[in-house]
Amino acid sequence: MTYRDQYVSYVNMVEERMEALLPKSENAYADGSIPARLCDSMRYSLFAGGKRVRPVLLLSTCDMLGGDIEQAKTPAAALEMIHTYSLIHDDLPGMDDDDYRRGRLTNHKVYGVGHAILAGDGLLNYAYECLLQHALSHPENLEGHVKAAAVIAQRAGVTGMIAGQSLDLLSEHMPAEAERLQYIHTHKTADLLTAPLLAAAWIAGAEEKTRVALTRFGAAVGIAFQIDDDLLDLEGDAKALGKLTGMDAQRGKMTWPSLFGVKEARNRSRELWEEAERVLACFGDRAWFLREFVQQLRNRTK
Amino acid sequence: MTYRDQYVSYVNMVEERMEALLPKSENAYADGSIPARLCDSMRYSLFAGGKRVRPVLLLSTCDMLGGDIEQAKTPAAALEMIHTYSLIHDDLPGMDDDDYRRGRLTNHKVYGVGHAILAGDGLLNYAYECLLQHALSHPENLEGHVKAAAVIAQRAGVTGMIAGQSLDLLSEHMPAEAERLQYIHTHKTADLLTAPLLAAAWIAGAEEKTRVALTRFGAAVGIAFQIDDDLLDLEGDAKALGKLTGMDAQRGKMTWPSLFGVKEARNRSRELWEEAERVLACFGDRAWFLREFVQQLRNRTK
Repeated sequence: MTYRDQYVSYVNMVEERMEALLPKSENAYADGSIPARLCDSMRYSLFAGGKRVRPVLLLSTCDMLGGDIEQAKTPAAALEMIHTYSLIHDDLPGMDDDDYRRGRLTNHKVYGVGHAILAGDGLLNYAYECLLQHALSHPENLEGHVKAAAVIAQRAGVTGMIAGQSLDLLSEHMPAEAERLQYIHTHKTADLLTAPLLAAAWIAGAEEKTRVALTRFGAAVGIAFQIDDDLLDLEGDAKALGKLTGMDAQRGKMTWPSLFGVKEARNRSRELWEEAERVLACFGDRAWFLREFVQQLRNRTK
Repeated sequence: MTYRDQYVSYVNMVEERMEALLPKSENAYADGSIPARLCDSMRYSLFAGGKRVRPVLLLSTCDMLGGDIEQAKTPAAALEMIHTYSLIHDDLPGMDDDDYRRGRLTNHKVYGVGHAILAGDGLLNYAYECLLQHALSHPENLEGHVKAAAVIAQRAGVTGMIAGQSLDLLSEHMPAEAERLQYIHTHKTADLLTAPLLAAAWIAGAEEKTRVALTRFGAAVGIAFQIDDDLLDLEGDAKALGKLTGMDAQRGKMTWPSLFGVKEARNRSRELWEEAERVLACFGDRAWFLREFVQQLRNRTK
């Protein structure tokens, strides 16, 4: 199978699972179903397109490690719910206050601020509801699924993505600082790219050294991607190429090129991509998809 | 032990556990710790006092069912985090837009709207992070703890509390309707009072008929309390007596007395309290604390 076909296949898996977990609701309200308006607002953002990078990372890592892909679909869908909630809340007034995302009106512009807050809360809570039910429906791998859910919770949480968002918000009023930039990118971006790798490792029952390798890979890819984003923004090409994350590099003043200079930023990016490739080398041919995935991301700045 | 002493003892258990799970953070930012400002904003609302009704219900039900109280403390703390996040988000502009809660400035008035959104997201996500870690630290009762977490997720979620909040928000622009009022009170209020009962049942390994009984008890208490709240609001006594829930009965136009009349509302409340007492009778002397708990709530309107 070609890389492109495999990518489409993974995306289809997660789209189907998300549709099954969050079908359109017909009832304005009824016990046991999601109220129609709340469901609509959740679906509006969850099914807004996007590259489904985090689910694809989870599914492809599970494949690479020889895990049961069927067991990885719900965690992949749940992770996309978490990513989506973070975008809805990021766009709210008081946060980035954006009217558009990917050319469509943001959630609160369509459903109002109140329902956008609830749609985000709903997606976050429902992600865990799905993860927990999924774990219970696999008693033969209960601990693996609970560990996968726990690593997602940690990376998405108050020492992970939310920590990065908090610092990003505070940074608007603070002088630029390299250590803080590294912290924000590590947590706001890299943590939610590392979560699917480690979740897949727990689901597939991989050993500890595999998790250590995947942690290095996730951190390298996350930061390298962010540096490239900054470089592309500088070249004014970012919009044409699309963005991987919800981070708006234009908003903050801190970027890698502005702090370290373009040359040093390019060097750091190259080092990190090479680090990512070195990690994948340990997995041999089984890493063919992730290897191509890295190439595609890296080619953006070539 | 007297009822009052036992209540204080349960409250101390949950306060201690919350303090242990969410201690004050000293670092502006550092890998592995919660950023100081984010942690402060979460703690501001979590440690704002309150009667800790949901944790007390969880701990006392666990005691009643002969479960290990030690295993119930973290779920009790997590449930209070979920209740607290819902209050923070409820108070935001676009929702109730309140400046004060229990005589203190609301979270967004102190930390700004952006951080209040993150503090709420943080508490919600951290509740599941704690529940999942707690489940993993009890391998001998892993399934029980995962089922407890799953029932909390369901009752707090998009077919539970968030569903009630959604309908409550939409109701501002809709004509009053008895069925919708019942739905809002069931989900916005009663579901998060039933969650601790069922979580305790799973932790203690209770049988199905116990869970059925506790579900009836939770629904009866939740709705009865809400009807009494409406009646007290009508008498203008609500503020003096304090409120159990985050629901602002004054905001919506729909109340039990306005829809059914005061006499019928009083009748319905009495029937529900009697139903709650009938359920407790099945548990005999072991239900002494819950029996007194019900009496205290019921006495508000006497």
